[in-house]
Amino acid sequence: MSTFGTLFRVTTYGESHCKSVGCIVDGVPPGMSLTEDDIQPQLSRRRPGQSKLSTPRNEKDRVEFQSGVEFGKTLGTPLAMIVRNEDQRPHDYSDMTNKYPRPSHADLTYMEKYGIQASSGGGRASARETIGRVAAGGIAEKFLKQVSNVEIVAFVTQIGEIKMDRNTFDPKFQHLLQTITREKVDNMGFIRCPDASVAGDMVKEIEKYRGNQDSIGGVVTCVVRNLPTGLGEPCFDKLEAMLAHAMLSIPASKGFEIGSGFAGVSVPGSKHNDMFYFDEETQRIRTKTNNSGGIQGGISNGENIYFSVPFKSVATISQEQHTCTYDGKDGVLAAKGRHDPAVTPRAIPIVEAMTALVLADALLIQKSRDYSRSIVH
Amino acid sequence: MSTFGTLFRVTTYGESHCKSVGCIVDGVPPGMSLTEDDIQPQLSRRRPGQSKLSTPRNEKDRVEFQSGVEFGKTLGTPLAMIVRNEDQRPHDYSDMTNKYPRPSHADLTYMEKYGIQASSGGGRASARETIGRVAAGGIAEKFLKQVSNVEIVAFVTQIGEIKMDRNTFDPKFQHLLQTITREKVDNMGFIRCPDASVAGDMVKEIEKYRGNQDSIGGVVTCVVRNLPTGLGEPCFDKLEAMLAHAMLSIPASKGFEIGSGFAGVSVPGSKHNDMFYFDEETQRIRTKTNNSGGIQGGISNGENIYFSVPFKSVATISQEQHTCTYDGKDGVLAAKGRHDPAVTPRAIPIVEAMTALVLADALLIQKSRDYSRSIVH
Amino acid sequence: MSTFGTLFRVTTYGESHCKSVGCIVDGVPPGMSLTEDDIQPQLSRRRPGQSKLSTPRNEKDRVEFQSGVEFGKTLGTPLAMIVRNEDQRPHDYSDMTNKYPRPSHADLTYMEKYGIQASSGGGRASARETIGRVAAGGIAEKFLKQVSNVEIVAFVTQIGEIKMDRNTFDPKFQHLLQTITREKVDNMGFIRCPDASVAGDMVKEIEKYRGNQDSIGGVVTCVVRNLPTGLGEPCFDKLEAMLAHAMLSIPASKGFEIGSGFAGVSVPGSKHNDMFYFDEETQRIRTKTNNSGGIQGGISNGENIYFSVPFKSVATISQEQHTCTYDGKDGVLAAKGRHDPAVTPRAIPIVEAMTALVLADALLIQKSRDYSRSIVH
Amino acid sequence: MSTFGTLFRVTTYGESHCKSVGCIVDGVPPGMSLTEDDIQPQLSRRRPGQSKLSTPRNEKDRVEFQSGVEFGKTLGTPLAMIVRNEDQRPHDYSDMTNKYPRPSHADLTYMEKYGIQASSGGGRASARETIGRVAAGGIAEKFLKQVSNVEIVAFVTQIGEIKMDRNTFDPKFQHLLQTITREKVDNMGFIRCPDASVAGDMVKEIEKYRGNQDSIGGVVTCVVRNLPTGLGEPCFDKLEAMLAHAMLSIPASKGFEIGSGFAGVSVPGSKHNDMFYFDEETQRIRTKTNNSGGIQGGISNGENIYFSVPFKSVATISQEQHTCTYDGKDGVLAAKGRHDPAVTPRAIPIVEAMTALVLADALLIQKSRDYSRSIVH
Repeated sequence: MSTFGTLFRVTTYGESHCKSVGCIVDGVPPGMSLTEDDIQPQLSRRRPGQSKLSTPRNEKDRVEFQSGVEFGKTLGTPLAMIVRNEDQRPHDYSDMTNKYPRPSHADLTYMEKYGIQASSGGGRASARETIGRVAAGGIAEKFLKQVSNVEIVAFVTQIGEIKMDRNTFDPKFQHLLQTITREKVDNMGFIRCPDASVAGDMVKEIEKYRGNQDSIGGVVTCVVRNLPTGLGEPCFDKLEAMLAHAMLSIPASKGFEIGSGFAGVSVPGSKHNDMFYFDEETQRIRTKTNNSGGIQGGISNGENIYFSVPFKSVATISQEQHTCTYDGKDGVLAAKGRHDPAVTPRAIPIVEAMTALVLADALLIQKSRDYSRSIVH
Repeated sequence: MSTFGTLFRVTTYGESHCKSVGCIVDGVPPGMSLTEDDIQPQLSRRRPGQSKLSTPRNEKDRVEFQSGVEFGKTLGTPLAMIVRNEDQRPHDYSDMTNKYPRPSHADLTYMEKYGIQASSGGGRASARETIGRVAAGGIAEKFLKQVSNVEIVAFVTQIGEIKMDRNTFDPKFQHLLQTITREKVDNMGFIRCPDASVAGDMVKEIEKYRGNQDSIGGVVTCVVRNLPTGLGEPCFDKLEAMLAHAMLSIPASKGFEIGSGFAGVSVPGSKHNDMFYFDEETQRIRTKTNNSGGIQGGISNGENIYFSVPFKSVATISQEQHTCTYDGKDGVLAAKGRHDPAVTPRAIPIVEAMTALVLADALLIQKSRDYSRSIVH
Repeated sequence: MSTFGTLFRVTTYGESHCKSVGCIVDGVPPGMSLTEDDIQPQLSRRRPGQSKLSTPRNEKDRVEFQSGVEFGKTLGTPLAMIVRNEDQRPHDYSDMTNKYPRPSHADLTYMEKYGIQASSGGGRASARETIGRVAAGGIAEKFLKQVSNVEIVAFVTQIGEIKMDRNTFDPKFQHLLQTITREKVDNMGFIRCPDASVAGDMVKEIEKYRGNQDSIGGVVTCVVRNLPTGLGEPCFDKLEAMLAHAMLSIPASKGFEIGSGFAGVSVPGSKHNDMFYFDEETQRIRTKTNNSGGIQGGISNGENIYFSVPFKSVATISQEQHTCTYDGKDGVLAAKGRHDPAVTPRAIPIVEAMTALVLADALLIQKSRDYSRSIVH
Repeated sequence: MSTFGTLFRVTTYGESHCKSVGCIVDGVPPGMSLTEDDIQPQLSRRRPGQSKLSTPRNEKDRVEFQSGVEFGKTLGTPLAMIVRNEDQRPHDYSDMTNKYPRPSHADLTYMEKYGIQASSGGGRASARETIGRVAAGGIAEKFLKQVSNVEIVAFVTQIGEIKMDRNTFDPKFQHLLQTITREKVDNMGFIRCPDASVAGDMVKEIEKYRGNQDSIGGVVTCVVRNLPTGLGEPCFDKLEAMLAHAMLSIPASKGFEIGSGFAGVSVPGSKHNDMFYFDEETQRIRTKTNNSGGIQGGISNGENIYFSVPFKSVATISQEQHTCTYDGKDGVLAAKGRHDPAVTPRAIPIVEAMTALVLADALLIQKSRDYSRSIVH
């Protein structure tokens, strides 16, 4: 369904070529300073048309608050946001897509599920659907910032074969997680990889596939700092389970790993276990290493949360593909127009937004428990 | 929280040393033949004490239906199941754990979250919590079997450094996914790896870490065959998002990847895209390859669904660990008793159960849509 | 929260003086013919300014689809609808309300709950909030019509002391329930009471209170015909429980009774029980009487569902009220401008909409069960 | 479904003649002192066989905790409770009910919905289902008591034609609401009506119908005192909407009214409005009257919450009823055995339990908002 969250809850709507896309956010903290300017930066980071390497579809993606805010303060009531679809071309793809379900796109499965499809093909599976998520995430982020200066920073760690080191057992990588900022990420240009030694090669990798009318995937890594302890709702809604749910709901994502992830399985318990120590500075028990990725038993432990998400190569490519039509006849499909050969860098603000939505919700739930704990005996 | 699912819904309870563990399953199809014998096999597969290499804790784990079934037929009402905790030793770990939060276990985070902890330490984070899941999954599986002979088979593909080939682009691996059965998996002994050429080495790997009073992780891969198309609820409850949520809710899991997963990001779109063709045998459009892993746009497309889940090395090890006490003093902790050096093989029925729960729920939701589709115009 | 329903789900937003009010409807049957013209009639019936006796606030309340429909067919994706607030006067009430919480309005409790309040006073407690409900209900109604010609008709049965006979044991009343239509209701003018013998007195009753700068309440009765059997989800989501939830969520409603309701408690079981008989015409078992109100054991039995909802006298009145300010000082408040002395007739389309939302959701849930039932053995 | 609540959540199971009935409670405040003795009193009040006038079915209804508590303290994890069905007679009713759906019982609708039925007839529609609710309510009550000494007292205000005065505009009735206690209610014997002037007549009324092998209904009124302000979640989950949902989910209930209810509609706004004043004793703004019933705009205002619930005459009567068989043939049905002619008094602890469940959940939700409010700016 199109609702996500329990107490901090977003409901989104919109496909690529309808009047507008947007969302309703319920459970917004009341009395919070909030204007469209708080939301716009991440929407702009998400926006196509930011460089010669991305799609030329040129939208302004200006968010408009409809409700829930007055005189710059949230009312605690549902906050609706809309972003108009200014560049509507509903029949752009229609000649081909009426005949051909696009390979590895959602055309055929949407037809199976709904028996009908948006004329543009993309419909609700379009990346444009994510605008509502990013807008909602902006509110969650602003709230989390005020809670405990929570910082969420995502960045590109791999494009095709080109990867920066993300060995989670390497102190250098842990140092990067501790110090990376959005500013540093954006300073690397559209590629959004903070490792200057590979960023150039990543750009070349994308250009190569672009030249071949092909596409290539990548990996986004995300870190959360300064999160309170105690977040996450075992046994089914462990914090990493909610994050995984959120990440796999993003178009084109194919996985999720937290902390040591897949690589960690070959590290024995004696090395993988994060030993406790008492930290004089913060006056609390911390872990010497952080192979757990900031979550133990499904609950945040106050260390950095970090995870990675692979995004597959974009399905829409300009070269010819031997496939078949909706009625089962062999044929050749080639997408018209220009297409993004790599969307991984644009996934950054979406990953950050979904992370913020998960955390804000988990925090509100835990705070109700903290309350109940404080009064019983 | 401890409820999972919308229409097919399970609520679990129980920690390692209370009276019983179990669950309530709501939304069970009414009129289905069902006895405890349908549930017991997977519970027994989950059970410790099945071989010299696993923990000697010797429980019978007999499930008892409490409600929702009469004369061997389900009533459609909530079906409660309990499994008694026969081997209760509530204070077994208490001397140490009263002082030391066990590294990479949930002791400290449970204390942060709830301000109290089960005396056994393990509490709700114990693997014993998963009994309710496996019991509920047994009902879901029996239902799915009758829908369209849905088959769910999980198996071990990696233990420590020892891995069988799980290159998803390799036709041999795809063939394995098509042909693997639970019988074949169980025929490999407790290791549950279907590749005889590595299974022996995996056993040795476990023995090695056992000898070192250490532990080691592994990867479970799972395949779903014969699933109807159209399952999954974009945009937030895409089928892979629900599977990821389910998998990351299993104790010790650290990730999830579906289809080509992390490795797929370096395969260009032209190779990664799954081309369509009309299959004469089944009289429907299928894909030549299945890099998508049976889900496109968040919706099942009728191909095999397959995914992998890494399980970290068991946190409880017998060797000494330099860590600190709850009140922050340095010290050395060593777990008493004998412990499982590798739980990955025992995760198999849990992975299968959680998969079945996700699929049964998604199916019921989609069938309501199919109905609505069939009558509107 | 502002989300209602499980499979057919509406999320609303908007207060009285923000940019727009509206909703997102999720779970819309795909492929259904739908245009704004299907939605507008009930919105217009809900609209103020329809007669000299109601408030002069003159809005057009034109609904605009934002998504989820293309070329007049629903896509099955979330359908967003907005209605602009054309007559925005954010500070209209502010002088008084900044000082005085209006008696029996939500001013003080909103302040308690959120610590902030919309400047207009009304905010989310304004009747304008119901626009999103009515819009969503229009979709549910169109769907239910196609399912089995489900008819939902609400009408006024009481204004102040003036009541038409609603003795549910009287065959005449049951006949009325069987035959009443929206056309007949609307033919009675704005009063919407189908009993011509009392409708005139009801109008006079309203005029009397209007003359006194006072207000008066009333009762709305609603009937549902042609609903399939089997709807409702015991034990907590019995069909009458969902209807009661829906009705008590409407502003100013103070109760709910179904079937024989409060009066039925003094009728002994021997008379109250609805005897079964086999109906040759419909070839199914029906009940001779319908004191149950079409629901038994929380599940629809195919007879007419009927229930009544009392709406209290409007809280906003023009006469002076001796009350106190937000900071606790005694004082006198009088609402400025002209106010509706009786909103009961305008509640009609809201009651119908909420009824439709409950029924559409219950139907979709039951159809998934019908499916599961049909395949197990 | 069989789950109720968002943060404080109960899931129940069990029908009249299965092994046990019970529930799982999730969201229990951690660290709370709790033993079975906290739960048993209300279960015993609910129990049949308490007087010569009620059913002789003689069960002990002893609750057994399964999990979530250790050494008398809650762990914050799911708390499962079971009550064994000691007096199982699965085929007691079967001869008749195999042929006859009992009039105004759930037999036929359960068959319509599920296509199968518990052999005992009653199944999940049995009053025995409510045991899980009462057990869960006991936890909620203990929590609410510690929050702010919240008191919930329900009592009988009508049996058949015999009613005590419940004119909500009468200060005497408001005084009763302020002073009534469970002890006073129980001191009136099984009839549980605090007005000695009518209690005797109520008993006679029941005896009369019992003599006639008939049954009679009644009304339960409930008051909540000392509840914090700010509870209730507009627009759909207003506090009265949740209470109505809860009350209409109780077997045999036919309605709900809060505050002035149905009678209030004929009282003009000038009299119905509750004027504000500053209360020196509590140092907060209160209302002079309480026609609102403690809830305004869907949110608790700190005044007493009070509402009434009608319960229909018991459907099971011993006299012959001319009805028809499942296959549509006319015939005569008479219930065997002895039956309760009036269950209204036994509904008291169920009404109280469901009230507590609604309030505990609303409180936890609001406390998370209070938190979020406290930190934003």
